[in-house]
Amino acid sequence: MSLLVVGSVALDSVKTPFGQVEEALGGSATYFSVAASYFSEVNLVAVVGSDFPDEHLELLRERSVDLEGLQRVEGKSFRWRGEYGYDLNEARTLETQLNVFQSFKPVIPEKYRDAKYVFLANIDPDLQRDVLDQVRNPDLVACDTMNFWIEGKPDSLKETLKRVDILVINESEVRELAKEANIVKAAKTILSWGPNTLIIKRGEYGALRFSNHEIFSAPGFPLELVYDPTGAGDSFAGGFMGYLANVKELSEVHIRRAIIFGSTMASFNVEDFSLNRLKELTLPEIEKRFRAFKGLAHFEDL
Amino acid sequence: MSLLVVGSVALDSVKTPFGQVEEALGGSATYFSVAASYFSEVNLVAVVGSDFPDEHLELLRERSVDLEGLQRVEGKSFRWRGEYGYDLNEARTLETQLNVFQSFKPVIPEKYRDAKYVFLANIDPDLQRDVLDQVRNPDLVACDTMNFWIEGKPDSLKETLKRVDILVINESEVRELAKEANIVKAAKTILSWGPNTLIIKRGEYGALRFSNHEIFSAPGFPLELVYDPTGAGDSFAGGFMGYLANVKELSEVHIRRAIIFGSTMASFNVEDFSLNRLKELTLPEIEKRFRAFKGLAHFEDL
Repeated sequence: MSLLVVGSVALDSVKTPFGQVEEALGGSATYFSVAASYFSEVNLVAVVGSDFPDEHLELLRERSVDLEGLQRVEGKSFRWRGEYGYDLNEARTLETQLNVFQSFKPVIPEKYRDAKYVFLANIDPDLQRDVLDQVRNPDLVACDTMNFWIEGKPDSLKETLKRVDILVINESEVRELAKEANIVKAAKTILSWGPNTLIIKRGEYGALRFSNHEIFSAPGFPLELVYDPTGAGDSFAGGFMGYLANVKELSEVHIRRAIIFGSTMASFNVEDFSLNRLKELTLPEIEKRFRAFKGLAHFEDL
Repeated sequence: MSLLVVGSVALDSVKTPFGQVEEALGGSATYFSVAASYFSEVNLVAVVGSDFPDEHLELLRERSVDLEGLQRVEGKSFRWRGEYGYDLNEARTLETQLNVFQSFKPVIPEKYRDAKYVFLANIDPDLQRDVLDQVRNPDLVACDTMNFWIEGKPDSLKETLKRVDILVINESEVRELAKEANIVKAAKTILSWGPNTLIIKRGEYGALRFSNHEIFSAPGFPLELVYDPTGAGDSFAGGFMGYLANVKELSEVHIRRAIIFGSTMASFNVEDFSLNRLKELTLPEIEKRFRAFKGLAHFEDL
């Protein structure tokens, strides 16, 4: 029934050509949870410091995200500061303060351990396996990662990949991880390491999903205004996993729909800073955009 | 009935990480014609020099391309030399010898002047309008252009755009032409200048089509081996216009299918150097790949 996410809850300061925010709610587990909350119950495991504003947690509670697994420890919360230029495709990190996140050890509460759907957001691959050691018998495990771990802990990352079903990462990271420029070859290499599915996030170009027998290309949603791309990838993962946790079926039809729901949540997320857009959606609004994706991508077969 | 193309017929020397060719058959009108020839009769207007190898023209004749409009004049043929790195997205031009192409004046033979479908490949926008002055009553006019004309003859290009239905250009050129980074805003700007349709070629990311009321996103076809991207854009245009000239209908269903046939021809073209792959296709093979595109992009609506 339940969907478990382990990742970061953070305070983000972000500047884009369209505005800026200071110490706004952010973090991979936050974006994931709020996006997934429209489809499924969500259990969150993360850590915040003693300075973390309670109003931010209130937002998660309002979305019915279960916070029993959120540790609050003495010290300062994880902070990230970044900016984007006009192309909005790549963040420039100005400052990362790990603070309490540096010594984060995920502890999965007993009531979360039977989670059937597990998302390991972008954290140390050693910790990702610690989480897997604590859950009993999941139906589906997906994980994210980033260039920092690809470069710094490649062997540990490969150990984690042996134990996950789905890897969800950015296009440039696929190439870096597989050491291969051609995306089809790179995907084959990564699939040979363990995951049965690779989902490649391509920003405004959408997403590409490889399994051993199928390739699916999801379009990016053309938006006239992109305020802040922060959290788009985690919103994608949240919509994707939330939908699957709800339908409890991993058929091709549902995997593809899940990717479109993921793309839908990502497309909403970039329309405002922080969680401002994501927190106030309605299911009819989400389904309307899903159908707009269908209108965007559909053509008649011969 | 007929489809007219005006553009270049050239000798290309191309080097990619996977091999190289010297003075191979190339040119925008060549790629366009061969791609379109699987769907429609094609009338070609271009110029070659006295040194142009007859075997290259034989290839065009074998594809039933009408060459009455191909001028053969004293002097050397248009030559282009370029190379690609591993990312294969952008050609590096090493040498361009315009030769007889420099003084090219398109003369449309009388029997071509009732062409219903006209494609103005990437040539001087002044010449593009010269062509339009010579055709009588086309149903559909599409054109290509490039950064050279966007920077060098923006006003002439805008005059041409007032007289075309469809502009087919690369993504970076869309941004440059509209002076706008956001692709949706850039498309709106360009549509306000005259064309009712803008087709944006995005290389491995596929194509995006804007009209005043519809957006269509066509996927790129994931290929394990891309030998040579030269001519992909013109092959796309050839498949697109050839299909439309054949069905003689401009409904949404057919426009979208035409874009997929264009993408299909482009995906074949990059699988070998020069026209080597494009020249030997069969209709069943083309339709099979069309269906593979459908399998790649399809998802069930809600």
